[in-house]
Amino acid sequence: FDGFEVQIDADHERADMVLNRPPLNVIAMSQREVLRQVFEALDAHDDVRVIVLRAEGEHFSSGGDIKGFLEASPEHVSKLAWNVAAPARCEKPVIVANRGYTFGVGFELSLACDFRIASETTRYALPEQNLGQIPGSGGSARLQKIIGITRTKHMVMRAKRITGAQALEWGIATECVPDDQLEAATRSLVEELRRFSPLAQRTAKKLINDNEDSPLSVAIEMEGHCYSRLRSSNDFREGVEAFHAKRKAVFRGE
Amino acid sequence: FDGFEVQIDADHERADMVLNRPPLNVIAMSQREVLRQVFEALDAHDDVRVIVLRAEGEHFSSGGDIKGFLEASPEHVSKLAWNVAAPARCEKPVIVANRGYTFGVGFELSLACDFRIASETTRYALPEQNLGQIPGSGGSARLQKIIGITRTKHMVMRAKRITGAQALEWGIATECVPDDQLEAATRSLVEELRRFSPLAQRTAKKLINDNEDSPLSVAIEMEGHCYSRLRSSNDFREGVEAFHAKRKAVFRGE
Amino acid sequence: FDGFEVQIDADHERADMVLNRPPLNVIAMSQREVLRQVFEALDAHDDVRVIVLRAEGEHFSSGGDIKGFLEASPEHVSKLAWNVAAPARCEKPVIVANRGYTFGVGFELSLACDFRIASETTRYALPEQNLGQIPGSGGSARLQKIIGITRTKHMVMRAKRITGAQALEWGIATECVPDDQLEAATRSLVEELRRFSPLAQRTAKKLINDNEDSPLSVAIEMEGHCYSRLRSSNDFREGVEAFHAKRKAVFRGE
Amino acid sequence: FDGFEVQIDADHERADMVLNRPPLNVIAMSQREVLRQVFEALDAHDDVRVIVLRAEGEHFSSGGDIKGFLEASPEHVSKLAWNVAAPARCEKPVIVANRGYTFGVGFELSLACDFRIASETTRYALPEQNLGQIPGSGGSARLQKIIGITRTKHMVMRAKRITGAQALEWGIATECVPDDQLEAATRSLVEELRRFSPLAQRTAKKLINDNEDSPLSVAIEMEGHCYSRLRSSNDFREGVEAFHAKRKAVFRGE
Amino acid sequence: FDGFEVQIDADHERADMVLNRPPLNVIAMSQREVLRQVFEALDAHDDVRVIVLRAEGEHFSSGGDIKGFLEASPEHVSKLAWNVAAPARCEKPVIVANRGYTFGVGFELSLACDFRIASETTRYALPEQNLGQIPGSGGSARLQKIIGITRTKHMVMRAKRITGAQALEWGIATECVPDDQLEAATRSLVEELRRFSPLAQRTAKKLINDNEDSPLSVAIEMEGHCYSRLRSSNDFREGVEAFHAKRKAVFRGE
Amino acid sequence: FDGFEVQIDADHERADMVLNRPPLNVIAMSQREVLRQVFEALDAHDDVRVIVLRAEGEHFSSGGDIKGFLEASPEHVSKLAWNVAAPARCEKPVIVANRGYTFGVGFELSLACDFRIASETTRYALPEQNLGQIPGSGGSARLQKIIGITRTKHMVMRAKRITGAQALEWGIATECVPDDQLEAATRSLVEELRRFSPLAQRTAKKLINDNEDSPLSVAIEMEGHCYSRLRSSNDFREGVEAFHAKRKAVFRGE
Repeated sequence: FDGFEVQIDADHERADMVLNRPPLNVIAMSQREVLRQVFEALDAHDDVRVIVLRAEGEHFSSGGDIKGFLEASPEHVSKLAWNVAAPARCEKPVIVANRGYTFGVGFELSLACDFRIASETTRYALPEQNLGQIPGSGGSARLQKIIGITRTKHMVMRAKRITGAQALEWGIATECVPDDQLEAATRSLVEELRRFSPLAQRTAKKLINDNEDSPLSVAIEMEGHCYSRLRSSNDFREGVEAFHAKRKAVFRGE
Repeated sequence: FDGFEVQIDADHERADMVLNRPPLNVIAMSQREVLRQVFEALDAHDDVRVIVLRAEGEHFSSGGDIKGFLEASPEHVSKLAWNVAAPARCEKPVIVANRGYTFGVGFELSLACDFRIASETTRYALPEQNLGQIPGSGGSARLQKIIGITRTKHMVMRAKRITGAQALEWGIATECVPDDQLEAATRSLVEELRRFSPLAQRTAKKLINDNEDSPLSVAIEMEGHCYSRLRSSNDFREGVEAFHAKRKAVFRGE
Repeated sequence: FDGFEVQIDADHERADMVLNRPPLNVIAMSQREVLRQVFEALDAHDDVRVIVLRAEGEHFSSGGDIKGFLEASPEHVSKLAWNVAAPARCEKPVIVANRGYTFGVGFELSLACDFRIASETTRYALPEQNLGQIPGSGGSARLQKIIGITRTKHMVMRAKRITGAQALEWGIATECVPDDQLEAATRSLVEELRRFSPLAQRTAKKLINDNEDSPLSVAIEMEGHCYSRLRSSNDFREGVEAFHAKRKAVFRGE
Repeated sequence: FDGFEVQIDADHERADMVLNRPPLNVIAMSQREVLRQVFEALDAHDDVRVIVLRAEGEHFSSGGDIKGFLEASPEHVSKLAWNVAAPARCEKPVIVANRGYTFGVGFELSLACDFRIASETTRYALPEQNLGQIPGSGGSARLQKIIGITRTKHMVMRAKRITGAQALEWGIATECVPDDQLEAATRSLVEELRRFSPLAQRTAKKLINDNEDSPLSVAIEMEGHCYSRLRSSNDFREGVEAFHAKRKAVFRGE
Repeated sequence: FDGFEVQIDADHERADMVLNRPPLNVIAMSQREVLRQVFEALDAHDDVRVIVLRAEGEHFSSGGDIKGFLEASPEHVSKLAWNVAAPARCEKPVIVANRGYTFGVGFELSLACDFRIASETTRYALPEQNLGQIPGSGGSARLQKIIGITRTKHMVMRAKRITGAQALEWGIATECVPDDQLEAATRSLVEELRRFSPLAQRTAKKLINDNEDSPLSVAIEMEGHCYSRLRSSNDFREGVEAFHAKRKAVFRGE
Repeated sequence: FDGFEVQIDADHERADMVLNRPPLNVIAMSQREVLRQVFEALDAHDDVRVIVLRAEGEHFSSGGDIKGFLEASPEHVSKLAWNVAAPARCEKPVIVANRGYTFGVGFELSLACDFRIASETTRYALPEQNLGQIPGSGGSARLQKIIGITRTKHMVMRAKRITGAQALEWGIATECVPDDQLEAATRSLVEELRRFSPLAQRTAKKLINDNEDSPLSVAIEMEGHCYSRLRSSNDFREGVEAFHAKRKAVFRGE
């Protein structure tokens, strides 16, 4: 793949997509579509329980290839957000490990993942206003649902960089760790997520994603439906029995 | 009542619903419907201005009766969220005092109240993923509207416990106090809420609840309508006159 | 103008609307409509890039003229929110500098601005419950979209004052500075905002305002459309070229 | 009951609520709450599968007691819509049989039912503009979701009467029959509805009611959840087996 | 005014805006803004109760000046929808009388009015696909809320013309009359609308417009609020008293 | 393909997907995913401008394989709606030609297409209530957005069949033709759609689909953005020039 590589670790049921065009890991226009295809493939891969997106070197990604912006056709552009939203459409949980610059499309892609582990070196930004542009692949939209209108104007209209610590405080990052512990924290979250029932896990992910667009009353109904669906699963029976037997549950995803 | 008791203190216009199956105050399946009925009765009770939900002992509630989950019929299950939402439907303000474990349906019930006073011992969690389940009575839905998608995934998909202090910082808890001050803080909030106009108070509660589902432009209209309705009330006239006379207003709820 | 004055500083492309009825800067009923008209005029003024709302003296504004509330006709009242929302409808960025009391309609007006710079003396409140009322010009509605239902109930139902620092932590204020640096911080933000492309700037502002009411999927589409529209602008071309030439971009708003 | 009576026909699993203050069947202010309570009681009644709302005499109802409008307190008024929406909250299907005048709250109550059988004498109207009022219990709101903004303005702003035939053409009435067949058509629909699985029936009703407020993507998810829930029911198994055996299904509501 | 004239008939409290560039009444780019300003002025004009939009000659309007489309700046274009929505923002009722071609922006402007009286010669269309365009000022959006997705695709994607009769059947037109009765029907509707309480009338218009964007539950609340606000009006008291006295009500708009 | 075949007619830039398991064209569980894949492939196929879905024999489809419903896993079931929505996600216009039975998933698939040509023999139904089920792939949800709650309850809760003529009247079918003209009407619509600009066509389709979920104000903005984007296209320039030159436009999709 141009600009990234894929590593599958079947023993840990983990797949890594690694941006490998350091130091800035610029994401080429054409790379977005390939990233999407790989997300879809890994989501269908039987050996994979958890998908990790990370990068080689000091920075996650400085963003897109700025020259490419001027060259792409308007039509091509309109597919960008669809490709960038690929992690959100995966059924499996997607973790992103962000260090250093996590700008522009690098940040947008990260925002479409389920868990963002930042490090103390992380700088998140949507710097497009510096170029006379705005973010174009859903970064502003996703951010606004998380941090509200005031902070979104601060970040988007001022092209402000925020640290990993700030991102944690604002509810953008799931965790923020010292930079040399980023890999360990990622590994630890992968192991944690593997322990849950795959069925209950993907139900939870989809429910929460769907509920971003649901009015509260409908969101509560949706939650009730998911709960109800899982009640007849073998995994739930196993979970309840293991709880009473005070043993570790063995989930099979059924 | 099975699992809780009711105390009415007419002098302080206060009713308490007290979970009394310590130490864990497990909430039985059938208890939810009775809780709802009592909320409705207290809401209609003339001696009551403020409803308090609290618990005996070290923990608010470890959640539902896990064995009960497997036994209930799917139909019965679909009424759970309706029962759990009873505090939100009350016209009167509902305070919940949370200490220790406040898990599962205990947390969901608390989230449907207007004011959550946590203590330093409080641990909030939706631990259902540990059982191969998801929350089923609106806990995930309500949480997501308050704390956003990233933190909701953190709490729901990882079954994470958060402290009272964390909950305050994330906007889940209204206050967080030392554990030995939980009762005093509750009492103090009851007294504070009694001082306001009952009419303006229930108007504010309903407006804010309705506006969870309104687009901003509609929410602003709703607010204008409520304001307009209150302008012709005697309580507002009293409030304005008392303000100018620099005396305490005496509200009658008219 | 009754209750405020306007200063245009063409050299810095800045217009100031200054509440000048100290010490409390009470905002008269009729003043709201004039404020709206001036916002509209400044938005159309060629010498102005950034609009600043601020006040003379120790307090931004203690709110409306409470006696006026009882006298206004119900019809007049229903236009209040439209007038108060004027800063949000401006195409140009609007900064508000808040110190001291920023209560009632003073806070509502501030919430309709894009950037709120608070000082250490700032106290934000919607104190209407003290009068047997609720906020009536969108304050509760806007607040709820930013800080969620729990904190909105805390502020509105309890008529609680919060400090500038608290407002920063909750995502209400954009910045919080020592009181003697409020003017400098405002000036600095004006200069910062002037550097961006006016076209990309107003596109970003409108997008973010529109997206408050959009479901996520629609919000992402809206963002893509804005991005796409800007791609053919001269300002974006200039921004990209300047970036590659490592020089400062000169935006013309085309 | 004041203004209506209740008839339970256990053989046909049918309950009738019959307005019996002919000829105009004016609905008193206090009657609305009692109607709601009876709807709730019949919904819980084991002998009842289908609820019918109808009236004695030539007209369904000319609407509310106009003098009562001036006397009720503003607070009481705000509960009206909740009472009038009782048929929509019932789990069981509710049929209304409308003949002659079906005006004001009589029409609003009818709009909250699932099936409206009109006759050739039916005249539907929301005549409140004639009194300097608007409909107040959801009539305008429900109508607009069914017939769109143009026709709603026609009916509400012009206080226009429309015939049963017109209502059928506009999608307001489910059927329109000659006046002397109104009872037969009602009976026939009751029998038809009794044949279906009670479980699948109430699932369908709730789904469709919930989906009035859902974006399309969420509505599709909700539908999938309901389908999924029913797949494990005995009624569905029976339905499939009966279909293949070419026999009539015997549903038990499980 | 360029392209239209204004006639005020104070005796009938009616203002007419008459497109007067026959035979096609092409609407120039710049004309849209002036139309908006006149709508705003007439809305504020004391002698006017009802605003009528109509045209000289055989056709209402063939739409915009097609050459102008290519010349306008992208920025100017983005204001189009705001100008075209002016009739919807008026507090007073706006009637449009459509005959012959009512195409493009002519149709969009008509869709923003409250009452569309079509004649047998009327042809409504959004023909932009013929030019490689789509409608740009809200025509497709408004249409879709009225006629649904299937018919909107039929009209927009096929650039189909529909007759006045078809438009009546689809709920787009309020009335469809023989062409020589268009003026009489308009006059008659003006007289009808003048008879109602101005206060209740503008309340109804605003409510229905606001409710296009409200979920059903919120829409029902909004309706209750408007009802409640009007209860304390003199016009409502007059309406009720006149009803009981069986005399014609005399509304004063208070 | 199992259960259908694909025909590409490059001369007419048309691809046909033909259900070929007559007489009932039952759609197997597994077939849905293959249908989706083929829709995606044809959407990407350069020789194809318009996609047609039709069937061999007397009936379009009696729906799914009822036995399959009981066998599929709950997880598999939850993907059904995604597959069935494939025609809506295509960028190219999709026509469906429906004759005879068009039931269950056959109807749901048809509802996801852009244009439904019915014949006089067409019978549309969602008969799932007969089996103790509800529709599960978006049929009820899509229908409700088109025909409103009353008619949706009529069709879904009563499992009612409606004719092609009725479907036309209710806005479900785009056209209804004599049965022997179904192929000709389809061909004619294909030719009609080929004449438009491919770029403006897919913009219109996507806009209208997106706007199903947008509040009116946002929908109007979306429309303005699409208009704006197309203004800089060569196709629009060609359209305008051809209009003025009174010649046929030659669109290239740029």
